[in-house]
Amino acid sequence: MKFSKLYAPTTKEAPKDATLPSHQFLVRAGFVAQIGSGLYNFLPLGKRVLRKVEQVVREEMDKSGANEVGLSFVTPSDLWKQSRRYYKFGKELLRIKDRKDNEFLLAPTHEESIVDVVRDKVTSYKQLPLHLYQIGLKFRDEARPRFGLLRCREFIMKDGYSFHANPEDMKREFGVMEETYSRIFSRLGLNFRAVEADSGAIGGSGSKEFMVLASNGEDDILISDASNYAANVEAAKRAKRTCQSERPEANGMQKFYTPECSTIAKVAEFFKVDPFYTIKAVIKKAIYEDSSKVVVFFVRGDDELQETKACNACAALELEDANENDIKEAGLVAGFCGPVSLPEGVEFYIDLELEDEKEMICGANEKDYHAIGVNIINFNKDRFKDLVTVKAGDKALDGGTLSLTKGIEVGHIFQLGQRYSEAMNATFLDENGKAKPFYMGCYGIGVSRLVAVMIEASHDEKGCIWKKECAPFMVHIIISNIKDEEQMNFALNLEKELESLGVEVLCDDRNERFGVKMADFELIGVPFGVVVGKGLAEGEVELVKRAGLEKTKVSKNEIMSRLKELL
Amino acid sequence: MKFSKLYAPTTKEAPKDATLPSHQFLVRAGFVAQIGSGLYNFLPLGKRVLRKVEQVVREEMDKSGANEVGLSFVTPSDLWKQSRRYYKFGKELLRIKDRKDNEFLLAPTHEESIVDVVRDKVTSYKQLPLHLYQIGLKFRDEARPRFGLLRCREFIMKDGYSFHANPEDMKREFGVMEETYSRIFSRLGLNFRAVEADSGAIGGSGSKEFMVLASNGEDDILISDASNYAANVEAAKRAKRTCQSERPEANGMQKFYTPECSTIAKVAEFFKVDPFYTIKAVIKKAIYEDSSKVVVFFVRGDDELQETKACNACAALELEDANENDIKEAGLVAGFCGPVSLPEGVEFYIDLELEDEKEMICGANEKDYHAIGVNIINFNKDRFKDLVTVKAGDKALDGGTLSLTKGIEVGHIFQLGQRYSEAMNATFLDENGKAKPFYMGCYGIGVSRLVAVMIEASHDEKGCIWKKECAPFMVHIIISNIKDEEQMNFALNLEKELESLGVEVLCDDRNERFGVKMADFELIGVPFGVVVGKGLAEGEVELVKRAGLEKTKVSKNEIMSRLKELL
Repeated sequence: MKFSKLYAPTTKEAPKDATLPSHQFLVRAGFVAQIGSGLYNFLPLGKRVLRKVEQVVREEMDKSGANEVGLSFVTPSDLWKQSRRYYKFGKELLRIKDRKDNEFLLAPTHEESIVDVVRDKVTSYKQLPLHLYQIGLKFRDEARPRFGLLRCREFIMKDGYSFHANPEDMKREFGVMEETYSRIFSRLGLNFRAVEADSGAIGGSGSKEFMVLASNGEDDILISDASNYAANVEAAKRAKRTCQSERPEANGMQKFYTPECSTIAKVAEFFKVDPFYTIKAVIKKAIYEDSSKVVVFFVRGDDELQETKACNACAALELEDANENDIKEAGLVAGFCGPVSLPEGVEFYIDLELEDEKEMICGANEKDYHAIGVNIINFNKDRFKDLVTVKAGDKALDGGTLSLTKGIEVGHIFQLGQRYSEAMNATFLDENGKAKPFYMGCYGIGVSRLVAVMIEASHDEKGCIWKKECAPFMVHIIISNIKDEEQMNFALNLEKELESLGVEVLCDDRNERFGVKMADFELIGVPFGVVVGKGLAEGEVELVKRAGLEKTKVSKNEIMSRLKELL
Repeated sequence: MKFSKLYAPTTKEAPKDATLPSHQFLVRAGFVAQIGSGLYNFLPLGKRVLRKVEQVVREEMDKSGANEVGLSFVTPSDLWKQSRRYYKFGKELLRIKDRKDNEFLLAPTHEESIVDVVRDKVTSYKQLPLHLYQIGLKFRDEARPRFGLLRCREFIMKDGYSFHANPEDMKREFGVMEETYSRIFSRLGLNFRAVEADSGAIGGSGSKEFMVLASNGEDDILISDASNYAANVEAAKRAKRTCQSERPEANGMQKFYTPECSTIAKVAEFFKVDPFYTIKAVIKKAIYEDSSKVVVFFVRGDDELQETKACNACAALELEDANENDIKEAGLVAGFCGPVSLPEGVEFYIDLELEDEKEMICGANEKDYHAIGVNIINFNKDRFKDLVTVKAGDKALDGGTLSLTKGIEVGHIFQLGQRYSEAMNATFLDENGKAKPFYMGCYGIGVSRLVAVMIEASHDEKGCIWKKECAPFMVHIIISNIKDEEQMNFALNLEKELESLGVEVLCDDRNERFGVKMADFELIGVPFGVVVGKGLAEGEVELVKRAGLEKTKVSKNEIMSRLKELL
C-alpha cells in the first residue's frame, strides 16, 4: 500500500492528558483519535492492528470448539432485572429509553443475553456442553475514563459463555480456556501471568485474571518465588504472619485510660508494644441494593484492610468511608473501637489471622480507653474473613516469599456456577429427567485494550515496536527521493514483489523530507524498514529492524531474500 | 464441523409476526433470534453468513482504494448540533445521557463523526481524495421495526465517506462506487438495479439506490423498457402526459356554483370533463425544525401527490395531513381550493406538468364554488415543482413505457457536496492557498439486511437456498444411522478430506431420525448435501443439490471428485 493513499495523520503532539506511552503513540501515530470522553475512533492503522488481534482471538477460540455469535448491543433492561444485576450494577450501566419509553441498556457484558439465547432451546444434557462467544462492542460508563484505549467507555471485547451439566465439566472448560487464553497471549508476544482474582460484579465461584506484566499497570499482583502462585492483591493469600518481638503480657482483660491515643502508632507507643499485637478497626459504610449500614472491620495494627475483600465479606455492592455522623449513630467511638463490647447490632468482621489470638490490645469502645489482654475467641466462625492487603515480602502459602509487581488485566475467566441460570430460570433435563439450572462459565478478553497493551509492552522513546503477529504492516519502504526515478522504480517493484507473496507493505511515496519519513517509520513501528536512498546508485539499500533500530547495508539484489528470511 | 457441536436451534415454528420467508427461515433455521423489538442476536449460522457478506464488502471496498476504520458508535450530540441534524432528525435518533448528564446519541449514520476525523488533519488538496469506510453497528429507533433483519433498530452497515477537492472528483468517486457496489451485489448473486433516488435525511445533490428486485420489497421502482432508466417512485421522472379527450372550452375564467362537488370525481362529472383538465389540491401541514405551516400542493385531478417530492418541494422535515382546524385557520376551504385567489400568505406549489396549462377547472377558494377557464400562468417559476407519483404505464423520458416493480434497498450512494463540511467548518487549502469546505460523498450498504435479502432472493417452501459465496457451509453430510460404523467412518473421512482442502463442511452426526436431519438440511440450505445411508453397503452415497433438491446416486469412490467439480 502506498503511504500517499493511507490515512495516517501522524503528529509530534501527544494529547495533554496522555501520560502513558501507548496513549501517546496511538494518537501520535494516527492509530486512533478521541471523539469524546472514553470514546475513540479507530483510524486505518489502528483498525488493521485491531483486526489482527481479533483474528488471533477468533482462531484460538474456534480451535477450542467455541461457536461465534453476535449479540445485540442494545439490550432490554428486563433481562437484567431477571438476574437482578439491573439493581446491583452502579452508574457504569448506562440505561436508555427508546421512543416508546421502554428501557434498554448498553451492554457492559452479555451474561443475561446469552442465557436468553439458550433458555428453552437447550433442553437436555445431551446438548451440553456448549460454548458461545462473540467479538463486539461493550459500553461501561466509567467515572474516570483514562489512559487512551486502556480504560475507555466504549470498547471491543471477546466474551464467551459456556453451559454445562455439572460443576466438573464447567471446571474442565475453565481449564481449556486457561490454555486457550495462554495460547492467545503467547501468540501476541506478551509477558503475562494467570493470577487468582476476585470475581467482582460478574460473580461466581472462582476466577482467574490474565495480567500482562507492565510497570504502568493499574493492578497490584503478588507473585511467589517458590511456585507459580500469582494473585491479584484483591484475592491474594499469604501464610499467617508471626512477630519477632515479645507479646505484651496481661493478666486478663483490663481497661486503660489512653487519652489522645486514637491511632495505632500512638497506642503501640503508649503500651510499648509492636503494632502486631494491636487491633485496628476500620469503620465503613456498606451499600446494598436498597439500604446501607455501618460495618466494622478488624485487622492487625500493622496490616491494611483490602477493600475488595472487605466488600465481599459483608456482601455489599460497594463500601464508602463512614462519616462522623454514621459512626455516632452506630454508637461507635472513632479511634477507640474494638471487637469486644461493641454496641448491640453493629455488624463486624475480623481478619482470619486474628482467630484465636490472645493478649491483644484494642479499643474499648469508650472514648480515651483501650483494652489489653483481649482474647479473640468465642466469636462466631462467620465473623472471620480474609480482610488484609498482602504485601511484598509476606510469606506465600507455598513457603516462598511474595513480591509485588504491576499488571494490566487483558483477560478474565470465571466459573459462574448457577448464579445466572438459577435467577433467570434457565434449566435443562439431566440424565434422570430432572430439571436443573445450567452450570456456566464466562470468559473475557479486552480486545481493543490489547492494542494499547502491546504498545506498553513493546516500544521505545521514538514510537511503537510491533511484533510480527499484529503489526499493521510487515515491511515499510522509505523512498528517500521520489523524484529519483531509479529509487522510485526500485521501491515500487520491491513493494509489488513482496505483495505478490502476501506480505503487507507500506511504501512511503509521499513528497516529504527524508527526516519526516524516518520519524514516521519509527513512530508507527512496522517491524522492518527498507530505506531506498542515494546508496541505490551503488547498488545498495538499507535494512532497518525497528526493534533496536539496527541498520545494515544490503545489496539491492539480496534485499528480497534477506526479507524473506526475516518474515 | 460436527452438527453436534454447532448451536443451531432449528424449529418448525415461525414467529407469529413473521410474514416474509426470510424472517421465517432465519428464525426457524436458527440463524438469528430476536431479543427485543427490532433487536436480533446472530447465532452461529447467522454469524457465519454475516461474516462472509462483510468479507465480500471489505474486499471490494479495499480494492477500490478505500481505507477501513472503526468509528465510535456512541457519538457526542455536539457534533450533530454542528451539522444541525440534531434538530432535524426525528425520533429515529436515539439520544442518551451519560452519568455526568452529557448527551450522546446512538449513531444512525456517521457523517458528522467522519468530518471530525479529518477536520484539521487533512489540510491540503494534496491529501485528497480520501475515502474512509467501516463495517459496524448502527441504531435507528424505527417506529415500526418489522420483517426480521429487513427493518431492525440495531443493524450492521457498511458506511463509507469520501473527501474531494472539487465536484468533478466527487462525481468520479461516485462512479467508482457505483461500480464497486455492482461488483459486490453481483458476487452475492443478487438481481439488482441501481435506481435514481431521493436523498432523504442524508441530503446532498444526487443519489442512487441499489435495489434488489423482490416481490416482497417495500419500495416501488419504475423501470423503462427503452433504456436502463430506473428510479425509486420518490424520485421517478416521466414524460409530460397528454389527454385524448377534449379540453373543455371556456370563455375566460368564470365561477360556477358546484354544491357537494368536493371531490375530483364529482367535479369532473358535474362539468362532464376528463379529470385530466381539473386541478386537485392536497393540503398538508409541513413540519420544520421549530415551526410548522399549512402548504397546498396542486396536481392534475387524475394524478396523485408523491409525498417525498412534496416534502422536498417545501423543504420540510416531514409532512402531516392538515386537520380541519389547520385548514380553517389558513383561510382555506377543503374541497374547493384552487391556485388562483388563494388567501394571502398561504404557501403553495404546483406540479411542473401544469405549468402554462390553460382552460383548467379548479376550486374557487369559496365554499360550493369552482372556477373554469383557469390559466396556470404568471406564477413565479419557484412555485413549479415535480410533485406527482409516476405510475406504471406512464411514458418515460426516453420514450419507453414505465413499469412498476418492487425492490428492497440494499445500498445507497450520495453526492453530498459541501453540506456537512460547510456546516462543520471542515476545510482544506486548494491549489491557490484558499480555504474551501471539502466536497464529500457517502456510500452505504445494509450488511445485516443483506443476509435476509439473499434469502428473499433464493429460497423455496422448505427453506433457504444459499449461493456459494455466502453459504454458512459448502457441503452438508447427512449420516443416516450413526450407529452404523461404516456410515460413520465414511462420513467422518469425507469431512476430514474436504476440510483439508479448505472446504467448510457441516457433518450431521446427531442422534436424530433421518427425517429430522433431512428437514434441517433443507431448512438451513447448504448448497450441497451428501447422504450417507444404507446404499453405502453397496458402495453408493447420494448427492443432493439444495437448489431444486435434485438427487443423484454417486459411487462412494467418486463423491470427492464430483464435489470438487461442483465447488
